[in-house]
Formats: sequence, structure tokens, C-alpha cells
Amino acid sequence: MANNKKMVEAITSRDEDFAKWYTDIVKKAELIDYSSVKGCMVFRPYGYAIWENIQKDMDRRFKETGVENVYMPMFIPESLLQKEKDHVEGFAPECAWVTVGGSEKLTERLAVRPTSETLFCEHYKNVVETYRDLPKLYNQWCSVVRWEKTTRPFLRNSEFLWQEGHTLHETAEEAKAETLQMLKVYEDFYRETLAIPAVVGEKTEKERFAGAEATYTIEPMMHNGVALQGGTSHYFGDGFAKSFDIKFQGRDNKLHYPHQTSWGVSTRMIGAIIMVHGDDDGLVLPPKISPIQVVILPIAMHKEGVLEKANELKDALKTKFRVKLDDSDHAPGWKFSEYEMKGVPVRVEIGPKDIEKGQCVVVRRDNREKIFTPIDKLCETVEKALQDVHDAMYERALENMKEKTNVALTYDEFIALGKEQGGFIKAMWCGDSACEDKLKEETGGVKSRCIPFEEEQLSNTCVCCGKPAKHMVYWGKQY
Amino acid sequence: MANNKKMVEAITSRDEDFAKWYTDIVKKAELIDYSSVKGCMVFRPYGYAIWENIQKDMDRRFKETGVENVYMPMFIPESLLQKEKDHVEGFAPECAWVTVGGSEKLTERLAVRPTSETLFCEHYKNVVETYRDLPKLYNQWCSVVRWEKTTRPFLRNSEFLWQEGHTLHETAEEAKAETLQMLKVYEDFYRETLAIPAVVGEKTEKERFAGAEATYTIEPMMHNGVALQGGTSHYFGDGFAKSFDIKFQGRDNKLHYPHQTSWGVSTRMIGAIIMVHGDDDGLVLPPKISPIQVVILPIAMHKEGVLEKANELKDALKTKFRVKLDDSDHAPGWKFSEYEMKGVPVRVEIGPKDIEKGQCVVVRRDNREKIFTPIDKLCETVEKALQDVHDAMYERALENMKEKTNVALTYDEFIALGKEQGGFIKAMWCGDSACEDKLKEETGGVKSRCIPFEEEQLSNTCVCCGKPAKHMVYWGKQY
Repeated sequence: MANNKKMVEAITSRDEDFAKWYTDIVKKAELIDYSSVKGCMVFRPYGYAIWENIQKDMDRRFKETGVENVYMPMFIPESLLQKEKDHVEGFAPECAWVTVGGSEKLTERLAVRPTSETLFCEHYKNVVETYRDLPKLYNQWCSVVRWEKTTRPFLRNSEFLWQEGHTLHETAEEAKAETLQMLKVYEDFYRETLAIPAVVGEKTEKERFAGAEATYTIEPMMHNGVALQGGTSHYFGDGFAKSFDIKFQGRDNKLHYPHQTSWGVSTRMIGAIIMVHGDDDGLVLPPKISPIQVVILPIAMHKEGVLEKANELKDALKTKFRVKLDDSDHAPGWKFSEYEMKGVPVRVEIGPKDIEKGQCVVVRRDNREKIFTPIDKLCETVEKALQDVHDAMYERALENMKEKTNVALTYDEFIALGKEQGGFIKAMWCGDSACEDKLKEETGGVKSRCIPFEEEQLSNTCVCCGKPAKHMVYWGKQY
Repeated sequence: MANNKKMVEAITSRDEDFAKWYTDIVKKAELIDYSSVKGCMVFRPYGYAIWENIQKDMDRRFKETGVENVYMPMFIPESLLQKEKDHVEGFAPECAWVTVGGSEKLTERLAVRPTSETLFCEHYKNVVETYRDLPKLYNQWCSVVRWEKTTRPFLRNSEFLWQEGHTLHETAEEAKAETLQMLKVYEDFYRETLAIPAVVGEKTEKERFAGAEATYTIEPMMHNGVALQGGTSHYFGDGFAKSFDIKFQGRDNKLHYPHQTSWGVSTRMIGAIIMVHGDDDGLVLPPKISPIQVVILPIAMHKEGVLEKANELKDALKTKFRVKLDDSDHAPGWKFSEYEMKGVPVRVEIGPKDIEKGQCVVVRRDNREKIFTPIDKLCETVEKALQDVHDAMYERALENMKEKTNVALTYDEFIALGKEQGGFIKAMWCGDSACEDKLKEETGGVKSRCIPFEEEQLSNTCVCCGKPAKHMVYWGKQY
């Protein structure tokens, strides 16, 4: 693995070339490898361990709300995909199609799932008969395929990993409440686990999911002022139920159509982690999902007692934290760079002088702060340092988001901000998608991100056409 | 969900029609639902929860041996699959092929992975340079697709869930040791977690995995005398490395080919659980992987204090066990049948008379034994009952396997046993695959299961051709 190269080849500076900085990190922190199929990538152990930690935390949150996991087939017959008109229009153009099974041409081609609404509907039709069978609160962790023309690791892949929740309810009110509850789960997860703040709200009609009556979104802001659609939650009304003829006997003994939701987040979140928190030395990982939370680096390892003491520290920490002791023969300088590149939140250094003094050094990844601590207080010091790293990461990200959020009261202000500044633009909107189209075209890509739950009355007129404003909208370019 | 039907429609008796009994359980215990793609099934919450518990236990065992998880793409370009000659011959005939992406015909068709040796090799070539990069001990949890003509839930599916471990080593010895170590992990898991005994050993050349130098297998015996290939571990030598041109700089500064293994188990294990342990009332689940370990059923629920006490019991148990309190308004008789069908290992009954006496009743699923226990001793009683259930399940399964294992010293004995008795046949073999073919044909399907690690010298001659025997082999029909 030509380890020495790492010391030499520093990564591209974040401010110099953000896109190159991003792909440098993705490769040098050993998150992914490219495969020979375009847009399909290999999740290497370090990248996949981040995803496993995300899954564990999020799965717990889902299950606490009563959600159960299931697994649906990966193939969708073309006729099944076509049952809901808007849905098939949205997804058919980007499906991978299986046309041959074994040595025989199939009579009907099969889409590799781009999302699984249709499969869940088919199943619900089989298992729901009365209101006693509701709600169904199902989720699955799987990979999905969307045949993308341009791809970028984690952000846009032909195959990516995600979770998709699909729920079915007796009433519209219940389904709407579920849609918002799951958006809240995402928001909490982003803040509490990923240390990422975000804007949340409802998508405009133009940006809705194919087949949804309402789509809600969580939109974090990347360091470079580009937004990311970080997760979505959809309310379907009874549209899918009607298309798939799912009915249940209600409390009134009559047949009714149930109301439905779906919600999902994906490995794209790893892209957000990189672009919100990373710096010129590499990844900076939120402590809660970092595969290694604490790395112990012995200094002057050959000196008597150093390795023994380092092992004692490891034993003291390992019941509470994910710890690695690196006792390899690499130089300390290489090790420092390596674990900074990998974004390990806290490093513990221990050498002969420290041992003499009964202390060791705790170094935070996010701000390089050095904390000298008595060895017998190490556990508490590390625990506090991890919490401080998390809090400081969140604060910095929040500050970046605030700095990169501007108000546009006039059309010219909007275009100037959109072309030159990036970030979020808060501006009033009349509700007409023609204005969305125009603003996107004139700015080279600024789209409505969402209508936040708490709107401000910035003015009374649409920033684009001057007609009466219906909503305040967050706008921005996106990945 | 027509819950009342369950009470009425009992399942088919196991001894009457084993195949129908099996599919009855699979449906009535709500493990799966069929989808509209042949051989692809829906894992319902109860079935998937079993798989999640299996994953959790097994993943821990893998990681304890140093294995790391990764995720490889699901698509394999045809040219990549073709790089290893035996491998492509084994798998190409049963691949599902993607030929269209979006609206364009692909220039090269892509197999949906039937197994991922080729993808791992491609990646290893990118990341292995010197002996310092070895070993690579990787595993992935994913689904794979094999286009089967006849399918059966869990046992033979077009798409199924599994884990596939792939490791790369500096020396042949190390790789061979890994192959056997992982077989041992499987054997321990079957015994300690699934309460299933099995025969382990090496496959004959004829039954080897496509491309392997040696294949090892674990073969549990089903209740009806049919064997199941329950997991395999393969040693590849350096064959794949040569085909994929993977080389590393050795300690001697020269280039070498590394040695490779792969090993896997699948959702087929759930089929084994059903067919080894189940009875005429439904599933009997091994306590360690049962989604519900203890179900609490309040009797005369409307009487004062019963529900409160049932909730107290739940609170007392829930920190140690997976507990469900069923306080629904179904009749107690329905509940008894329901949780027996679902194979919940231990049921706790609590009613007004029990409360008066300060006791409750613990009922084992496997043998219906009733244990009266003081309420303040419930935790210990349940813990012991779960362990006893596990042990008794293992013993019964072991007894069944022993009963269904016979020795054939002559050709006529072999054919008679193979045709009439089922089960394992122990018999001597000359090493020639022509004898395997003949025995299979004459018995209507009896194949070599494995050469066990500890062979007995039953006689000196092959049971089929009479030539000098090389090995003692376990034979049997298989799913």
C-alpha cells in the first residue's frame, strides 16, 4: 500500500478545488474504491464501518417509533412499476433492466429496484384486510439502482445503499403525522449523531417525489455553499392504494383505501459528513459514527514501559469507546497524518516523559487542542473531549450555514446572490413553477430547496414575477 | 388478516406431507409472502427479524476473528465474470443479465452477482501491493441472484440473502487455516445458536465450488431424513490470483501470488431451523435467534390487577430478554396457538389465581412442560427455561441425526437404504466420480455429502465398484 506516499502527497486544498479535495479524501481516507461498472463503487472497510454505525443508530430510532424491518425482492416487473402513472414516469427512464434469466429471454423485463413503493403496495394488498391490520410500519435497508449519466462517490451513484420506510395507515391524519415524525427523526439524527444542522420544510410541487401529494426534505449546507438533499419523507394520500387496489374494512364495516407514506436516507449522508466537516488534512468524523473514536499513539515505542502503558490505556478505554492502539512501526509523523486523514476525533499520545509525570496528551481532531490529563482521569477526559468535539463541529457547521444564508428582496439581488455567492437564498415566491424555472435558468442552477415550517414575511411579492407572494422559500444550488 | 381462520385451519401434519407442512409454516408463521417475480420472496417482519438476529450473532463471531465488512457492487460485467474459467462455467448459466440501462442498450451486459469472487479480486488487485497489505479478511452481507428453475422458500430462491467472506493471504498454509477456521465458526454457530448438530467435512472433487481447490461443508440433517448443505468454505489456492493478476511484493522482495478463500451461509439456514426443529403446531425457534423469547399472556385480563401484574412481569424481564406482552382482545386459546405457531420458546401465563398465590406459569414451547414459579424468581426461571429449551432442542436434533444415520457395507445395502430409508449413509468410496454418478442414479438422488474429518474404516473396498477404498463418505439426498 505504499504507505509513505501518504505523507508526501498532501490532498488538494479545500478552498482551492473543492471537487478535487472531495475525491482526494474519499480515496485517501480509504472510504471507497472504484469498480469497473461506471457509478458503482466498492465500500471499503473504513467507509462501510461508517455506514454500519449510521445504520445502528438510525435503526434504533426507527424501532423506537414502532417500525419493523422487512426485505422486498430487488426485481420489479415492468407491469408492476407501471401501475402508478406519475411514479413510472419518474423512475422508468433511469432503471437498469434485466431481460435475460439464465439462458432465456424473459417474457417481461424486470427493473432492478430504483425504489420499492410498488413492491410494498403489492405486498400490502396481500396482507391487509381490516383496520386491525393497520398501521403497517415497515422499513428496509438495501441497495437501489438508478442509471445516472454523471456520477460522484456517495452523492450520485448508479447503485447506492439506503433505507426506505413505507407505512400504511387507516386515516390521512395518521399518515401525515407519520410523514412529519420521520422527518423529525432525520433532523434529530443529523443534529445529534452527525453534528449537522439543516433547514427542513416542504418541497414545492415541482420538486415533489413521483407520485407523492407532499414531499418534506432535510437540507444541510455544505462548506462550499452548495446544498444537499439529505433525506426526504413523502405523504402519498391514497393514490397508490387506489392504483394498487389496496382496501381495508374500516370500523364502519365499509371498505376504505388506506393512506401511505415513504421516507428515505442514503449513503449520500457520508458525502454530507465529508463536505460539512472535512478540512485540508482530511476527514473530520462526528464522534458518534466514527469507526475509531480514540486512537492511541505510543511515542518512543521502543523505550521500556511505553507499549505496556499504551496497552493499559487501551484496556481502560475500550469498554466505553471504539479504540485503536497503533503499535505498528510507522513513524509517529506518519501516524499523525494517517489518523487526521481518517478523521479520528480524539488522539491520545503517550511517551516516556508522560509516563514519568503520570499523564498523557489528548488531542482533538477538530481544532488540534491539546489537553494534558492525569492517566487515572483519561476516561473522563476522553468522554468530555468527544462531546466537545461533537458540539464544536455542530456549532461550526451552524455558523457556516448562517454565514451562507442570505435574503433576496429583489430579482437582481436574487440573481447576483445565486450566481456569485452560493449558499441559501431566502426569498418570497408566488407559488408558480414558471418562476422556479426562470430563477434556475438565470442563475445557472439555483432551485427551490423547501418552504420551511416557519416562514418569515420578507416582503409581499414574489422575488421573480412581482405577483403576491404565497410562501417564503429557501433556494440554492444542490449536489 | 382473518385472525380467526388460524384457529380453524390447522397446518398439515409433518409426517403426512412434509413439503406441505413446510410451506404451511412458512406462510402461517408469517415468515414470507410471495412476490410476482418467480422465486423472489418478501421477508415479512417476523422472518426478517430471525435473519437480523442471525446476522448480529454471526457478525460478532466474524469480527472476533479479525474480519471487516465491506460492500461490493451488485453488477459484474460479463468479461470480468469470464476471467476465471471454471467459475464462469459454474455460474453464467444461472445469472440474471442486465442489458439495458436507462433507455440505452448496454455495450456489455452485466450479471446481477450470483457470488462476488470476481468483484473482490478486481478490488484486491487495486489495493494489495506488499505483504504488509495482507491478510485481507473481508465479508459482505448482501443479496445474490441465481436464476433457479424450481424454487422453494428459503431453500432455493432466485434471490436470497447471505454473507460471503473473501480473504487473501500471504501463504497457502494461512489461507487453508482460514478456510477451516470459518467452517469451525459455522459449526459453532449452528450448535451454540441454532441448536443444530451437523456433519462437517470436505466435499468430493465433483461437488466442489466452481474454481475452488477444496470445498468444506456443514451438513445438518432435517427431520425427514433429507440433508441440507448448510454452509460452505472454499480454499482457492492462487488460481483466482493468477487469473486476475493479483501479485504482492513478498518478504523476499520478489513478486508472489496470494492465496485466497471464500465462505458463505444464507437465509437457507431459516429453512434448516424450520425443518430440524418444527412440529405439528408450527415453528419451534432456537431461543437465541427467536424475535420474541418470552411472550406474556394475561389470563382473565379484565379482572382487576391482572394487566398491571402482567406489565410488571414485562418490565422485570425486558432488560434481559426479548419480551412481548399480548394484551390484545383475542381469546387466550387463539393466543396460545398463535405463539406456538410462531415458535416462541417460552410463554408466561398470569391470571388472578396466580396473583393470589404470588406465582406465575412458565410453559416451554418445545415439550409443553409447565413450570410454576414464584413471581420474584421469574427472571431466573425464564433464563433457565430458555437454556433448557436450547439444550433439549439440540439433543432431539442430534438423536434424529443419529437415528437417521446408517452404515452400508455392500452395494445392495446402499441402494436399499438410499431408496427406502433416507438419512445419511456412511459408506466407503474409491475416489472415482463415476461411482458417485452411479450411486446417485440408482438411488434417485443420493449424493456424497462430505468426507468427514474423522473417517471410520468401515471396510477396505468401495461400496460401489469394490476397488480399494480411499475414504469414508457421508451420503444422502439433499435439498
